[in-house]
Amino acid sequence: MNTSSVPLISPDQQAIEQELVETVVASFEKTPDPRLKQLMQALTKHLHNFAREVRLTEEEWNTGIEFLTAAGHITDDKRQEFILLSDVFGLSMQTIAINNQAHKNATEATVFGPFFVQNAPEIPIGGDIAGGANGQPCWVEGTVTDTEGRPLPGARIEVWEADEDGFYDVQYSNERVAGRAHLFSDENGNYAFWALTPTPYPIPHDGPVGKMLEAVGRSPMRASHLHFMVTAAEHRTLVTHIFVEGDPYIKAGDSVFGVKSSLIKRFVQQLPGTPTPDGRELTGTWARTRFDIVLAPTPDLM
Amino acid sequence: MNTSSVPLISPDQQAIEQELVETVVASFEKTPDPRLKQLMQALTKHLHNFAREVRLTEEEWNTGIEFLTAAGHITDDKRQEFILLSDVFGLSMQTIAINNQAHKNATEATVFGPFFVQNAPEIPIGGDIAGGANGQPCWVEGTVTDTEGRPLPGARIEVWEADEDGFYDVQYSNERVAGRAHLFSDENGNYAFWALTPTPYPIPHDGPVGKMLEAVGRSPMRASHLHFMVTAAEHRTLVTHIFVEGDPYIKAGDSVFGVKSSLIKRFVQQLPGTPTPDGRELTGTWARTRFDIVLAPTPDLM
Repeated sequence: MNTSSVPLISPDQQAIEQELVETVVASFEKTPDPRLKQLMQALTKHLHNFAREVRLTEEEWNTGIEFLTAAGHITDDKRQEFILLSDVFGLSMQTIAINNQAHKNATEATVFGPFFVQNAPEIPIGGDIAGGANGQPCWVEGTVTDTEGRPLPGARIEVWEADEDGFYDVQYSNERVAGRAHLFSDENGNYAFWALTPTPYPIPHDGPVGKMLEAVGRSPMRASHLHFMVTAAEHRTLVTHIFVEGDPYIKAGDSVFGVKSSLIKRFVQQLPGTPTPDGRELTGTWARTRFDIVLAPTPDLM
Repeated sequence: MNTSSVPLISPDQQAIEQELVETVVASFEKTPDPRLKQLMQALTKHLHNFAREVRLTEEEWNTGIEFLTAAGHITDDKRQEFILLSDVFGLSMQTIAINNQAHKNATEATVFGPFFVQNAPEIPIGGDIAGGANGQPCWVEGTVTDTEGRPLPGARIEVWEADEDGFYDVQYSNERVAGRAHLFSDENGNYAFWALTPTPYPIPHDGPVGKMLEAVGRSPMRASHLHFMVTAAEHRTLVTHIFVEGDPYIKAGDSVFGVKSSLIKRFVQQLPGTPTPDGRELTGTWARTRFDIVLAPTPDLM
């Protein structure tokens, strides 16, 4: 902040404002749950610090109330504007960072997103997650190991993604399950499956968060990605994506700040007729990539 | 915060978290409106500082999303849960404090609240704002002056209050206008009117904000008060209340932090039969109070 733009606040005024902060903090003093007390008191301090630092006007306060109201009204079972809001402020990603701290060579985590669905179909190794979703076929393979390089057999691998039009199955009005599945790593920790080469798409931007992004000159586009959630006994659950090297939205800025350089993978384009790893007959182009997954131990075993 | 409870954060982890904050701040760099840019960047920093300081868990983040969603869904034309939320965190009062800085002996401002209505009826000096609302009659009188003690004739005085059951007219399903009116100070800056002796009432607490107050052991009660909004040419509009000296919720803590000691007034109880200031015949007890209003000049004249 340019300090020359900060209005002069008299010591008396500062004392009045600080006393109010302390009164509000004290009002939470009798909270029975110590963690809730800590959260409420810290939230009080940071909210007030924000308002005091920017000298929030009454009109701006009102705009904030109206924004939250509009976000509440567009939110329903299928649309979650408050998660989008957290996402575009990087708060979702920060929460991921706080709770999935770097551990040796363990694969990095990124945002979960709103499109995961429980009970996606199981496929065998080498199976296809597309389920009828459109897009370029893409062979994905890799291993699941611990941080010492030991294979983790039987790890559960959930994968999900948007189709080439940028929509997940749940964004369509039909009930089709497509572009999502789960499989298990084999006795050597290996896995492989057919998916679709990921393509970029915008987060839902026809609501207040979209308007906000427009007002600040930011794009709603997410860099192309394929979602993973990997679970194995005695290991920290990994929620992550892999991103497509060369995607323009990696450089321009993923709208939810999900990109980490370790998660950018080469998706190698294959000419029509190039033999596939499993002998599948394809008439057009296809792609392949490799993603070796390293799981951290659960925090109590770290 | 007890520093012994802060988990150890490695320098690498701190660097990862800080880099994310800086990336998000940079994403707002192209905001055309410089004030919006300042607000977004400051909000980013304070939100992230909060999450990092408390080491926000993914479950707590999710609880926050659910809380905002519930607040959005209970909010409609008549119920504003986000204003309540701002109120109980003292953020509304802080915004008032920031925008209505102490100026000489000018009367202090407090929260506006959600119950003001435009175009309340005009009453003459000595008129009654009750309009059929129930409660003990209360004579309110005073002067409107500038900070040099010069009378301000023709100042517009809006007053509004809850009835003895703790409800404003707009909280009833009928269309009756009651417990609100406006009048003008006379040529000497004097005013007087009949109102109802204010009584304490809870803010609406059947929603998420009420649940939160319960979880933290706080009362939803507001200290008894009578609302004023006073406007006069070339003077800063004053939005304030007067509070009833001795009200238990002043000491226990007004749920929205609206009380300032300068706004606590003696409401003197009168026995039945005590002559009224204007000769009005009353069979029961009544009360009287005095509130001398001092308006600050508009900021450009300060």
